[in-house]
Amino acid sequence: MDGETVTGGASRELRRDPVSGRWVLFAAERRRRPHDLGGHGTVPGAAATRCPFCPGHEAETPPEVYADRASPDKADAPGWTTRVVPNKYPAVGGGGAHGPGIEGLQERRDGFGAHEVIIESPEHGAELSELPVEAVERVLRAARARMGELGRDRAMRYVQFFKNHGAAAGASLEHGHAQLIALPLVPAVVEEEMQGAARYAERVGRCVYCDMVAAEGREARRLVYQNDGMTALAPWAPRFPYETWIVPTRHASAFEETDDGSLRALAQALRETLARLRRALDAPHYNFLLHTAPCRSPRLPHYHWHLEIFPRLQPIAGFEWGTGFTINTMPPEEAAADLLQVEI
Amino acid sequence: MDGETVTGGASRELRRDPVSGRWVLFAAERRRRPHDLGGHGTVPGAAATRCPFCPGHEAETPPEVYADRASPDKADAPGWTTRVVPNKYPAVGGGGAHGPGIEGLQERRDGFGAHEVIIESPEHGAELSELPVEAVERVLRAARARMGELGRDRAMRYVQFFKNHGAAAGASLEHGHAQLIALPLVPAVVEEEMQGAARYAERVGRCVYCDMVAAEGREARRLVYQNDGMTALAPWAPRFPYETWIVPTRHASAFEETDDGSLRALAQALRETLARLRRALDAPHYNFLLHTAPCRSPRLPHYHWHLEIFPRLQPIAGFEWGTGFTINTMPPEEAAADLLQVEI
Repeated sequence: MDGETVTGGASRELRRDPVSGRWVLFAAERRRRPHDLGGHGTVPGAAATRCPFCPGHEAETPPEVYADRASPDKADAPGWTTRVVPNKYPAVGGGGAHGPGIEGLQERRDGFGAHEVIIESPEHGAELSELPVEAVERVLRAARARMGELGRDRAMRYVQFFKNHGAAAGASLEHGHAQLIALPLVPAVVEEEMQGAARYAERVGRCVYCDMVAAEGREARRLVYQNDGMTALAPWAPRFPYETWIVPTRHASAFEETDDGSLRALAQALRETLARLRRALDAPHYNFLLHTAPCRSPRLPHYHWHLEIFPRLQPIAGFEWGTGFTINTMPPEEAAADLLQVEI
Repeated sequence: MDGETVTGGASRELRRDPVSGRWVLFAAERRRRPHDLGGHGTVPGAAATRCPFCPGHEAETPPEVYADRASPDKADAPGWTTRVVPNKYPAVGGGGAHGPGIEGLQERRDGFGAHEVIIESPEHGAELSELPVEAVERVLRAARARMGELGRDRAMRYVQFFKNHGAAAGASLEHGHAQLIALPLVPAVVEEEMQGAARYAERVGRCVYCDMVAAEGREARRLVYQNDGMTALAPWAPRFPYETWIVPTRHASAFEETDDGSLRALAQALRETLARLRRALDAPHYNFLLHTAPCRSPRLPHYHWHLEIFPRLQPIAGFEWGTGFTINTMPPEEAAADLLQVEI
């Protein structure tokens, strides 16, 4: 992140595997991005004085596209509390040189889209769960605003909001940040989830996530936190130890339509869940990912947005990656009990 | 791995996610397994004197189910070159207490199956690519024999042959070993691949892998190695930098039916590919996984077994895991060129 503007590059393209149909994004420029976190699981050597996300270094990032600041006239200068900038080493870029093409077994598209970074706070070393709930809410407000904005581009089908915290989770910079990637395709995982939810709704006549929240509330063996609006739970079949989902208690398919009250409830639930994970697991590296309806969807009665949080306690083994099966050593009932028990 | 026999346990069960339909294996006993490799990417503190896979320590593993040894009458004693034993901390176990069941959103099955370890050689620190080709061939012969045997159990649908090398790839012990997991289900990734291959065959009338091998041979931009029988290539849309596949040049759907000549060709191709990866990438941690037809399939004209090799250069980031999309910074044409260029 040091001041260049973001342009599409011929080296950024999407290729499709001819057998499975899965898409892969190629982004060779990302090899050049700086790392202040090392490889697998190294302890971060914090270099706050040289961090492009710290106040005073605004010129080292592309110009901001969103900021929460007292003086709104002073863009790209200190005084902000949350700031969103294009990623200098984007996985996806602007318009491409050529349209979709297929030649024999080789199918490709330009890897266009947008890749933005939400700088969570001016504090270099603050983890999301240690910020005041208002600060967490500002991050979510930034995500909601940028998802709405990016989703208005009719070339985009999906905006992925996610966070990599720590080197084991794939983060390359230490300063707390989340990310948004706008894509011309709906990710396969979300597509499959929507299909599964649609099949359930067809069979049962209700939203599967609404039924899940109700059942978990009754059974109370996997609940982690609940407030007026949000339910945090260990799902029935988590892929990883301590995987936790935050699901709106009332039906809602698109995150970007969340009202302010629900956004505050989400901020509380997210902060509480992350604080419990932090305490129970000794500040683990983690990812979270939002699953939400594709851009510009009508309200979907069968789909329900939710946030999935995965602590990264072990590397994902080959068996998991290569089969789509995961082996989890921690039943969710035990994980939920552990998370409930810690004092935060 | 210390002498206990393998029994099924109630804590080993398969649970199905009610939305996506994906299965997760729960195996709480695996939390107790020993590690001589640390967490993410730590340098192994080799403890060969206490290694349960080293000669002289045969009593520390469950009794062998297969071995290549000069005196076949001396089971579970030194003198072997390759040895297969049940995993002491299996992901799947023997028969379970209860059959498949579904209750509301909660679907489960017993996690029965088998989990075996192929100890590649008596040498504690030898990496597969450093062994003589005959030793690599012995490992593959062991895999073929055990896959055939495990696949005769009609409760099993698939036998997954794979290897985790190094902590970043999910290995917990340093002594070179591969693994076999027999499962009552076909893994989702293989299922999807078979469906994609069937669609292609329906449309085009040929096997997609046969066409791929022919096209890559003509184009020669992604070839890594070829001998009489096997083709090693960087695929068109690899998920990871330096991902390499080894595909039989002639059509074959089931690995366990491989004849001795093709097995030797595979040993050469695997050894050569691993040696090139080792040299080009400074001895990376890696996984390989075999994709093959389900147990007891008839010969399938549309499906083609192959071995997928992934160096683990970076942790899998949240974006990748949560979307099914991967971002790859290395075009396969460059990766193949790098692998061809090193001297081994």
